[in-house]
Amino acid sequence: MAASSLLRSLSRISRALATSFYHRGPCSPFSAAAADAVGRGLAGLGPTAKGEKARVVVLGTGWAGSRLMKDLDTTGYDVVCVSPRNHMVFTPLLASTCVGTLEFRSVAEPLARIQPAVSKSPGSYFLLARCTGVDPDAHTIDCETVTEGEKDTLEPWKFKVSYDKLVFGCGAEASTFGIRGVTEHATFLREVHHAQEIRRKLLLNLMLSDVPGISEKEKRRLLHCVVVGGGPTGVEFSGELSDFIVRDVKQRYSHVKDYVHVTLIEANEILSSFDVRLRQYAINQLVKSGVKLVRGIVKDVQPDKLILDNGEEVPYGLLVWSTGVGASSFVKSLPFPKSPGGRIGVDEWLRVPSVPDVFAIGDCSGFLESTGKEVLPALAQVAERQGKYLAVLLNHVMKAGGGHANSKVGVDLGPKFVYKHLGSMATVGRYKALVDLRQSKDSKGVSIAGFASWFIWRSAYLTRVVSWRNRLYVLHEFQTHIFFL
Amino acid sequence: MAASSLLRSLSRISRALATSFYHRGPCSPFSAAAADAVGRGLAGLGPTAKGEKARVVVLGTGWAGSRLMKDLDTTGYDVVCVSPRNHMVFTPLLASTCVGTLEFRSVAEPLARIQPAVSKSPGSYFLLARCTGVDPDAHTIDCETVTEGEKDTLEPWKFKVSYDKLVFGCGAEASTFGIRGVTEHATFLREVHHAQEIRRKLLLNLMLSDVPGISEKEKRRLLHCVVVGGGPTGVEFSGELSDFIVRDVKQRYSHVKDYVHVTLIEANEILSSFDVRLRQYAINQLVKSGVKLVRGIVKDVQPDKLILDNGEEVPYGLLVWSTGVGASSFVKSLPFPKSPGGRIGVDEWLRVPSVPDVFAIGDCSGFLESTGKEVLPALAQVAERQGKYLAVLLNHVMKAGGGHANSKVGVDLGPKFVYKHLGSMATVGRYKALVDLRQSKDSKGVSIAGFASWFIWRSAYLTRVVSWRNRLYVLHEFQTHIFFL
Repeated sequence: MAASSLLRSLSRISRALATSFYHRGPCSPFSAAAADAVGRGLAGLGPTAKGEKARVVVLGTGWAGSRLMKDLDTTGYDVVCVSPRNHMVFTPLLASTCVGTLEFRSVAEPLARIQPAVSKSPGSYFLLARCTGVDPDAHTIDCETVTEGEKDTLEPWKFKVSYDKLVFGCGAEASTFGIRGVTEHATFLREVHHAQEIRRKLLLNLMLSDVPGISEKEKRRLLHCVVVGGGPTGVEFSGELSDFIVRDVKQRYSHVKDYVHVTLIEANEILSSFDVRLRQYAINQLVKSGVKLVRGIVKDVQPDKLILDNGEEVPYGLLVWSTGVGASSFVKSLPFPKSPGGRIGVDEWLRVPSVPDVFAIGDCSGFLESTGKEVLPALAQVAERQGKYLAVLLNHVMKAGGGHANSKVGVDLGPKFVYKHLGSMATVGRYKALVDLRQSKDSKGVSIAGFASWFIWRSAYLTRVVSWRNRLYVLHEFQTHIFFL
Repeated sequence: MAASSLLRSLSRISRALATSFYHRGPCSPFSAAAADAVGRGLAGLGPTAKGEKARVVVLGTGWAGSRLMKDLDTTGYDVVCVSPRNHMVFTPLLASTCVGTLEFRSVAEPLARIQPAVSKSPGSYFLLARCTGVDPDAHTIDCETVTEGEKDTLEPWKFKVSYDKLVFGCGAEASTFGIRGVTEHATFLREVHHAQEIRRKLLLNLMLSDVPGISEKEKRRLLHCVVVGGGPTGVEFSGELSDFIVRDVKQRYSHVKDYVHVTLIEANEILSSFDVRLRQYAINQLVKSGVKLVRGIVKDVQPDKLILDNGEEVPYGLLVWSTGVGASSFVKSLPFPKSPGGRIGVDEWLRVPSVPDVFAIGDCSGFLESTGKEVLPALAQVAERQGKYLAVLLNHVMKAGGGHANSKVGVDLGPKFVYKHLGSMATVGRYKALVDLRQSKDSKGVSIAGFASWFIWRSAYLTRVVSWRNRLYVLHEFQTHIFFL
């Protein structure tokens, strides 16, 4: 959401509270009534004192922020996370949940499990809110609560949080390229609720198409699943969907099985970052499992059909949009120098160089042009390693006595962040995946396709998932699959 | 939803289709365009011919309807189920899912698993629709599709289905006693989406109460969970909630743990149908685990508080309403004689005596006064055994040649339905339950309280759950609990 629209929606309540941010406990100079209005919760969110732990404020609970918070040394830092989402999502496994291959619960991990301090330690918090602005001189951020679903009794309110170190890990937004109707009618595939919505719609359409009175044409439309975007997410989702149709729909919805179809629309080449042989393997697999590949550019999206640039109309019952991500409007609104592509510009230590104590990691950040380095791709493995790197850096700084804001200590930050691409992976349906172990698009290296690489793909995520709970979930479901082979 | 309001919302599309219901395949006299508009799906939903299987139309997918469909002999009957819900819910386990003790998936079973014929057999269907009226002379029902969530592209449409046998198993509605604001502000606990809503709200309130800027008063309100109704559902939910607070909230939300409270409001006595000693045990357990019991009558429900008849205001963050069920507006609208209490009146073979080939089972039905029998309580065990009984009766009738509508064969219907109460059960938090094995309120018998009866309670439901899939789910989670003891 844009910062401006958040500001516009400021409630009466929040204005009433706006003057009393730095209340810090029972010895407050405010009246009893004001103290009650401000609440206990504010204690400790003003500036930290020298004798106290320093406070790292992290914006976001994605791959980058979650990994950072997991590794932060809470004996020396208080961790305050501000995010509209209280859990991390294993985004690469999300496509599998839409068709029931994995449970929704398996792909989401509550932050309180990743970093228990936020729910236990007196100065650490998870705050269900969005950051709306930063004051680097005062070392504070402005926030507004996210009260969706509770709006009839509780209007959103604003508050401030002081930071010693501030880390942006607030991610990117799905690209729509300004195409009309995408936001209204298509579903993205970035959050658990997106996957739930896709599953709900898919099952609803399957059921409705079986009811007497529906026309042939409407039946074909309802059961036409269109995926726009031929990157890993689009390809993985098409593959999963197609497998779901072959495996489950033909059995469980046999009345309508001949009406279900999947179309994948891509303006250029599918999986363009992959080795050409892998790409051909993926295309063969998708076509074999019944996915129709269409080369085209979407011009307009309407509630029941989309229009291609050649004028062709494509009726759909389910539309999934995965054409990559771009800088969010919040990131665009920030008064910092930007990297090419409009992300928050960082130096080689992932610092925002124009302001002290501010860092940016993951999809919201990119190397400044002055570093001479390319902006890294918006991938989980980039974000995760940046989070890990920054935790080491911040822990090191804290131990050297530089944890607090504007510390004058000249701390050596350690080595610069260097990204080594471990390879690209994508699945093309069940038990078939691509693993591209080349370091870049034009270099040489190993690439594998087929069951072995599917095994590698799942294993790779298994070693990345954060807790044993989820590792067991995913593994359990994985083993079930092996059994059925 | 009332039949009248459904009728009012008739769409343009459905009117266009209303004249062509009995299209039966490619040899239709209609034009090609009309045939396309009516669709393949209608084939076979006109009256069945003598040589074909007879058609049992079942309204509803609750305990009664699901058990009936499970046991119907599909070699002789086609099964057509009309319901706004494609799955059965194990309602007595629903309270456990709100606080994460059980998965949502564990307590819901898709009809296609209970009776696979509806998705495979050529003449059997599950139709996602509501019945809006019955024409007993023509042996047809009027239906309208349920297209919630798909309304921007698909208006609901009407259609007719001919039946040989018609079974009402469409359940009851939650009672609100006409109290203002209940439907708008309280959550019931009868469907999976209710449990999901309760869980979502509980977690949202826990998170919001931790954000700086909230007042003490608002924090107390947000974290006050109020349950109205002291029957088994209300008691079980209060117990689960209280356990959740002791077990999880104190650990995972330790910043706010002292603010969370549960209040149970009941106008009369809690668990009034149980043995007095069990009742006392339940009260002790609830109080011990921190539930506040309030004797009172709710007069008015507002978004953030409810008003009792003594004028007391009770602010709440979560309000769960479980004061029992009553006849639904659809049942009230039906032109049949009613039982005391307004349910569809049935004779001792569960027939609606005024019309041929029509039956009613479960919470929507009750013995006619003329039978001299009492209306049975709205319990899962009543519904389930009526479903089982009616399947035997209908299979018997079919084998004797009386499966089709208005069969002139004089078939012996077999024994009358006799209900034997197997006992009442309720949990009062984890590992503690009540089992009342007396046959009625005033007779003598065994009653047990404590862990042993909790074990019996879970086991009883384990033997009732329909498929092995769910049995394993519930058992698995059950074993995990034992481990943690």
